Amino acid sequence: MQIFNRLESEVRGYIRSFPTVFTKASGALLTNEHGDQYVDFLSGAGTLNYGHNNPLLKKKLIAYLESDGLTHGLDMASQAKADFLETFERVILKPRNMAYKIQFPGPTGTNAVEAALKLARKVKGRSNIISFTNAFHGVSLGSLSATGNTKFRSAAGIGLSNVTFMPYDGYLGQGVDTTAYLDKVLTDQSSGVDLPAAVIVETVQGEGGVNEASFAWLRALEAVCRKHDVLLIVDDIQMGCGRTGTFFSFDNIGISPDIITLSKSISGYGLPMSLVLMKPELDVWEPGAHNGTFRGHNLAFLTAKEAILEYWQDDAFQHRIAEKENIMHSWLEFIKESYPEGKFSVRGRGMVQGLAVENPALAGKITAAAFDNGLIIETSGSQDQVIKFLPPLVIEERQLVAGLEIFEQSVTDALGIAPVRSGDVKIRMGAAR
Amino acid sequence: MQIFNRLESEVRGYIRSFPTVFTKASGALLTNEHGDQYVDFLSGAGTLNYGHNNPLLKKKLIAYLESDGLTHGLDMASQAKADFLETFERVILKPRNMAYKIQFPGPTGTNAVEAALKLARKVKGRSNIISFTNAFHGVSLGSLSATGNTKFRSAAGIGLSNVTFMPYDGYLGQGVDTTAYLDKVLTDQSSGVDLPAAVIVETVQGEGGVNEASFAWLRALEAVCRKHDVLLIVDDIQMGCGRTGTFFSFDNIGISPDIITLSKSISGYGLPMSLVLMKPELDVWEPGAHNGTFRGHNLAFLTAKEAILEYWQDDAFQHRIAEKENIMHSWLEFIKESYPEGKFSVRGRGMVQGLAVENPALAGKITAAAFDNGLIIETSGSQDQVIKFLPPLVIEERQLVAGLEIFEQSVTDALGIAPVRSGDVKIRMGAAR
Amino acid sequence: MQIFNRLESEVRGYIRSFPTVFTKASGALLTNEHGDQYVDFLSGAGTLNYGHNNPLLKKKLIAYLESDGLTHGLDMASQAKADFLETFERVILKPRNMAYKIQFPGPTGTNAVEAALKLARKVKGRSNIISFTNAFHGVSLGSLSATGNTKFRSAAGIGLSNVTFMPYDGYLGQGVDTTAYLDKVLTDQSSGVDLPAAVIVETVQGEGGVNEASFAWLRALEAVCRKHDVLLIVDDIQMGCGRTGTFFSFDNIGISPDIITLSKSISGYGLPMSLVLMKPELDVWEPGAHNGTFRGHNLAFLTAKEAILEYWQDDAFQHRIAEKENIMHSWLEFIKESYPEGKFSVRGRGMVQGLAVENPALAGKITAAAFDNGLIIETSGSQDQVIKFLPPLVIEERQLVAGLEIFEQSVTDALGIAPVRSGDVKIRMGAAR
Amino acid sequence: MQIFNRLESEVRGYIRSFPTVFTKASGALLTNEHGDQYVDFLSGAGTLNYGHNNPLLKKKLIAYLESDGLTHGLDMASQAKADFLETFERVILKPRNMAYKIQFPGPTGTNAVEAALKLARKVKGRSNIISFTNAFHGVSLGSLSATGNTKFRSAAGIGLSNVTFMPYDGYLGQGVDTTAYLDKVLTDQSSGVDLPAAVIVETVQGEGGVNEASFAWLRALEAVCRKHDVLLIVDDIQMGCGRTGTFFSFDNIGISPDIITLSKSISGYGLPMSLVLMKPELDVWEPGAHNGTFRGHNLAFLTAKEAILEYWQDDAFQHRIAEKENIMHSWLEFIKESYPEGKFSVRGRGMVQGLAVENPALAGKITAAAFDNGLIIETSGSQDQVIKFLPPLVIEERQLVAGLEIFEQSVTDALGIAPVRSGDVKIRMGAAR
Repeated sequence: MQIFNRLESEVRGYIRSFPTVFTKASGALLTNEHGDQYVDFLSGAGTLNYGHNNPLLKKKLIAYLESDGLTHGLDMASQAKADFLETFERVILKPRNMAYKIQFPGPTGTNAVEAALKLARKVKGRSNIISFTNAFHGVSLGSLSATGNTKFRSAAGIGLSNVTFMPYDGYLGQGVDTTAYLDKVLTDQSSGVDLPAAVIVETVQGEGGVNEASFAWLRALEAVCRKHDVLLIVDDIQMGCGRTGTFFSFDNIGISPDIITLSKSISGYGLPMSLVLMKPELDVWEPGAHNGTFRGHNLAFLTAKEAILEYWQDDAFQHRIAEKENIMHSWLEFIKESYPEGKFSVRGRGMVQGLAVENPALAGKITAAAFDNGLIIETSGSQDQVIKFLPPLVIEERQLVAGLEIFEQSVTDALGIAPVRSGDVKIRMGAAR
Repeated sequence: MQIFNRLESEVRGYIRSFPTVFTKASGALLTNEHGDQYVDFLSGAGTLNYGHNNPLLKKKLIAYLESDGLTHGLDMASQAKADFLETFERVILKPRNMAYKIQFPGPTGTNAVEAALKLARKVKGRSNIISFTNAFHGVSLGSLSATGNTKFRSAAGIGLSNVTFMPYDGYLGQGVDTTAYLDKVLTDQSSGVDLPAAVIVETVQGEGGVNEASFAWLRALEAVCRKHDVLLIVDDIQMGCGRTGTFFSFDNIGISPDIITLSKSISGYGLPMSLVLMKPELDVWEPGAHNGTFRGHNLAFLTAKEAILEYWQDDAFQHRIAEKENIMHSWLEFIKESYPEGKFSVRGRGMVQGLAVENPALAGKITAAAFDNGLIIETSGSQDQVIKFLPPLVIEERQLVAGLEIFEQSVTDALGIAPVRSGDVKIRMGAAR
Repeated sequence: MQIFNRLESEVRGYIRSFPTVFTKASGALLTNEHGDQYVDFLSGAGTLNYGHNNPLLKKKLIAYLESDGLTHGLDMASQAKADFLETFERVILKPRNMAYKIQFPGPTGTNAVEAALKLARKVKGRSNIISFTNAFHGVSLGSLSATGNTKFRSAAGIGLSNVTFMPYDGYLGQGVDTTAYLDKVLTDQSSGVDLPAAVIVETVQGEGGVNEASFAWLRALEAVCRKHDVLLIVDDIQMGCGRTGTFFSFDNIGISPDIITLSKSISGYGLPMSLVLMKPELDVWEPGAHNGTFRGHNLAFLTAKEAILEYWQDDAFQHRIAEKENIMHSWLEFIKESYPEGKFSVRGRGMVQGLAVENPALAGKITAAAFDNGLIIETSGSQDQVIKFLPPLVIEERQLVAGLEIFEQSVTDALGIAPVRSGDVKIRMGAAR
Repeated sequence: MQIFNRLESEVRGYIRSFPTVFTKASGALLTNEHGDQYVDFLSGAGTLNYGHNNPLLKKKLIAYLESDGLTHGLDMASQAKADFLETFERVILKPRNMAYKIQFPGPTGTNAVEAALKLARKVKGRSNIISFTNAFHGVSLGSLSATGNTKFRSAAGIGLSNVTFMPYDGYLGQGVDTTAYLDKVLTDQSSGVDLPAAVIVETVQGEGGVNEASFAWLRALEAVCRKHDVLLIVDDIQMGCGRTGTFFSFDNIGISPDIITLSKSISGYGLPMSLVLMKPELDVWEPGAHNGTFRGHNLAFLTAKEAILEYWQDDAFQHRIAEKENIMHSWLEFIKESYPEGKFSVRGRGMVQGLAVENPALAGKITAAAFDNGLIIETSGSQDQVIKFLPPLVIEERQLVAGLEIFEQSVTDALGIAPVRSGDVKIRMGAAR
């Protein structure tokens, strides 16, 4: 670790939570330099939905490399890109009746958000954007303006502007529909909230603390957008690609975003890649007006295509996610009820689940204990008070259970009490189902 | 090509200049779906200094993949990252007596610039940044504010602020030292130019039209920075990694930047990666205050390490670059003199050379003809009036000459005249040397 | 009127509502070029609390002019300014136990707001300011950023920033304490609302539609400010100088603003003048750092002093205001009840009263009829839906009643019905009391 | 003075330079509480071109007050305003063939600038404005962004944006035409200088240090504006109303500004008033979109009209200004040559003259000595290195000479040497002519 302490900037973060040198990884397991294995409930913050070094994708990737397939292509036409486009259209868009043009911005999530915000502003000729409390959209300056967390915002060194924050679903307490408030300020010509070009929203806020918006709220949000001629951008960077149980996190909600951002797991292999999807009539870009050196990362296009072919041509994968969601959710409810000392509450959708802890310090103690016990898991939320469960979607059921067992052990370690479980895992799982 | 026209956003750019589907690439050659080969004088806009699919790096990369080496690691510690850091310190920094901390921002150049600007503003507690006419630093909002080109700026959809543009070396004509103007406005308490946190500069402006700053000007610029307690940021994203003949573009200039950004060719294989180097006393980052999903792209760390080991442990590579610079420069001088109709002038340093054309339309005709003739080369500059030569640094001499021959043919095609060359290439090359 | 149509910019406003040329004015009466008299329920938008050409002040003003007393003094020391300061301290500040330093910015309300915002930002080293829905603080760029109305905001031609709008008291419906929402976003480190330097608030929003904040809300607002180390600025430009019944609009509320802005009626005679009051420990201004040619308008200082001496040395004036408030309020309640067709509601405090009309078009018809009938009165609110009653505080009771009778007539004219009043005014007034 | 020290904010400025309490004033003389008289070479920073309490205007003003003429009229039509408009059109605009619409913004210079910048941005749909080094346009936020001085800028507490500063005439040394640089950055699509809505310029920079632009430079500036479809705004707030020898400072230059701001001496009596003149086709204001409580200051309209009638119906006043310019200039040249120790240089046009001092501290010593000797005069320029002579235009010749004699005495006091003058004033004046 010395080399990191000596040479790497103080900005380094995860290395402080997980202070060991990782060497290898496969599926849901990480291995360090001493050969110790860790179950990964972090998944590259949602990037490794298909696991580390997914063997199906790896095989294709190596073959492509060996054949000298084009690696770096700027935004020139390439076979790998054509194949990805064809596959994405055929497997993802068409079955959903979604007509979108596709932009390849620089290969990071924040770059996709920057492009989406530019496009929305250009289309509408307005500068304001509505974002939400606890939102996270990235830390380059344009995205950062739409990100709520003070830690990131204060690092800008300049004032952030052209974004208005509104309360997310539930922010003002149960029973308060915060889209009604949004509607009111957009209707009121003296609210001080300038008519925005777009609303940008996550259907579940991952970094913000696994905050779920209800489907009704999201539909109401879309209705407000339509009423005021405002674009709806869904940032599906962390919640897309199956994380919530469907390819897009909004597949079953009944909304039709004008612009969609994808990144993280889209390449399938942890390779940098991102996409902006826009309804065709919004594609007012001038050629080359948003560029970036790595927007033609063909290795990522290849694995992205293969991941789609492998996992999204039928419903089987979604069903397996639903099964594992059930396991996760049941287990967390079990923990909540078994350890009332923790003052836990459970939230989440699909395979992003959160265990909120009333005392943030306890959340930190639990995740630290988890690392000691062989589980990689992090906290989220404005006070780091929500433990976030993001296992690979492809995790084997026995690994998932093993991880959850480690987690339970870590809870009791942190609480300084004995585990309550008396029976075996199977019994509980049976109950859970 | 139909799939691109139907599905890809209008923002696509290079595909319009080079309308063919590329499939494979190796070294300095690109191959399209019909098996046609193209000499590559674009090199991924400076990303492929070591050529496409460099076989030395490819071998290591495939072995790493096969061994399930960690691919995606956020900013956790990994063996590949440790190896890169150790190599970069030993081979690059130490021999130059450069003490810097290293930040891994998101893996794109623009993300490195965003991080550099944040850091400078934070260190100095000031918001203004000095950039220069014709500068290009990226298109995410923070970087875009420091980028001069209207095409990019106007796409922002909002006003860009907190950056003041000053004339680059030569902008006010020969004999005018524009650093004296900068010194004057920073000294004058009523100039309206707020004291900046930093100056950000490219030693050669690539996108801006292959504009070279003189070494004296760069030293004077550093002196102005020191006088006014302003940080000096060198954006070496396109000009670093050997492009100008040395690893850093400022190796022989006698300046000591406070912050350095690297990207493009740093990974060696065209894989997304970027770095921010900062003097240790400037490393005031809060842990995690600038993050990004793909800042731990271990495949890139691996190839970056291997590229450094292969090319930068001794002077041999630099010597070969100097030889090829000589060929390029001589040939361009020959073209300038042989075809006065073109009203050409030559500029550049190392293996970034520019042929400025008085009539921008002619520049476009020449590069279009070049594509037809089997050469990938682009224009740059505010009016697309400078043809930019960026072959891979590893290009074989015979390929380089072949490319230059194609270029000459394209000049005459565009001018509608016959080539003047009477002898064979060797004679000219001899003369050139 | 021709000269105005030919030469004056289209920006002219009130001239369109009241299309006649005024020549003379006295107390609550305006006279036009034809000798027609109008009762003034506008009072220079709150500037003429002591009436037009108040004879007591006029006498002093003429004597001062005749004696060649200093008229224009920049911010040099003058006798008139010293006298004003002495009087303001003795009569206004000391009896209220208010310790404040006094700044004379440029002589307009917006300039006072600009100065207040600068000072708050400088004291706290923060850029954000909290303002409220429907707020009006002026239209120079700094103040405009804190003003809610789109008509004014869109005229800026640039984005307005560094201000966050929060819902004013009652904005989210009865029963919702909007200061709790403010407290929540300031407590939440991920709300996206940057910790502000200050909150700026009107105790009653005049331009915003005669929206009253409850005393409890204002006290809660102050408590939120204290909790988060945020300054409280009360903009008392329209509501100060007796308009709500006391000299400061917050005299009886139990809050202690850090900064107070005054203008409009402070000079007493309609002469341009404004003040910024700040707690002594906040007076961190550099000498001359906020200047303005007309900040030493000594004629205004003279009349300001005389107005204070005349009206604020004892409680008599306040009692007369309370009596007239009673008449106004009773009458408006009578109108509301007598003409249910109008769907009126009544609001206001002291001698700023509002008659809200469900249908904004009707409000406009009524004020237009009023002008025809000899009454100057305007609408306010985001939809011009609230008729605003701002008679001079010194209006004679019989004039007040006469104006209200004209108003009632105008209501019936606009509704196209007959007045319901059967008895005489006195009966109603008796009932009202 | 105690009351000021105790109660007035630290922002007070001139009171520190001239620490005495003024009571009366007439023409070019100020009188303090002890009956001491001071010659006024400051003139309210250019507000008192017609002297303190001009008796002709005073008489009209008192008569108007006595007749209960409308004092405060918002922007309703009034007889005083109509009369002013008619007079301004007939005496000022028509003889110059100037067709302009007239806006009455809030009655301060900075408010006029705010309105001018808004209008320009709205007309052109662009946000950027070009201003110049050492410019002063006011300190409300919009104007402040176009003001160069750090003392004012840093008081904003937030970043200032949407203005680009260019070098004023002479800033880059004699022989460098800085309009060519402006033309270049506006022509160059990669200069980083966004196409502005307007250029705002003072023909002589008063606060900036009495910097004169040459007529040729101003014409070239206008040509650059026309070439690039950019509006030309002349801020004539300090230099208009006769200060440079003609009513508008550009009367003899051959330029036709699109927008003109006037304030300071426009009312003639030191009363707050300002104007924005705009070419008719630019009058795109929405009714009421830029408002302000005191934009209908009818006392000022009255004295403004009378001042125009008195001084601008024929050339006599201009001739008297020219004579006094001659006296001032000759005397300053005499001082420069007689006291080479002072390293003085002379600059200025009309009755705004500057004596630049190589050592700023000496300039401060001289003006301090002048105050002790009975002369009110201030320094200007970014280092307070230029002594600015702004006597009332109506100053009697003998008072002007008396003031200049005091000034010479103050120079020798500050230098600690004996005056060189051997003869009497008349001889020198004869030589001067």
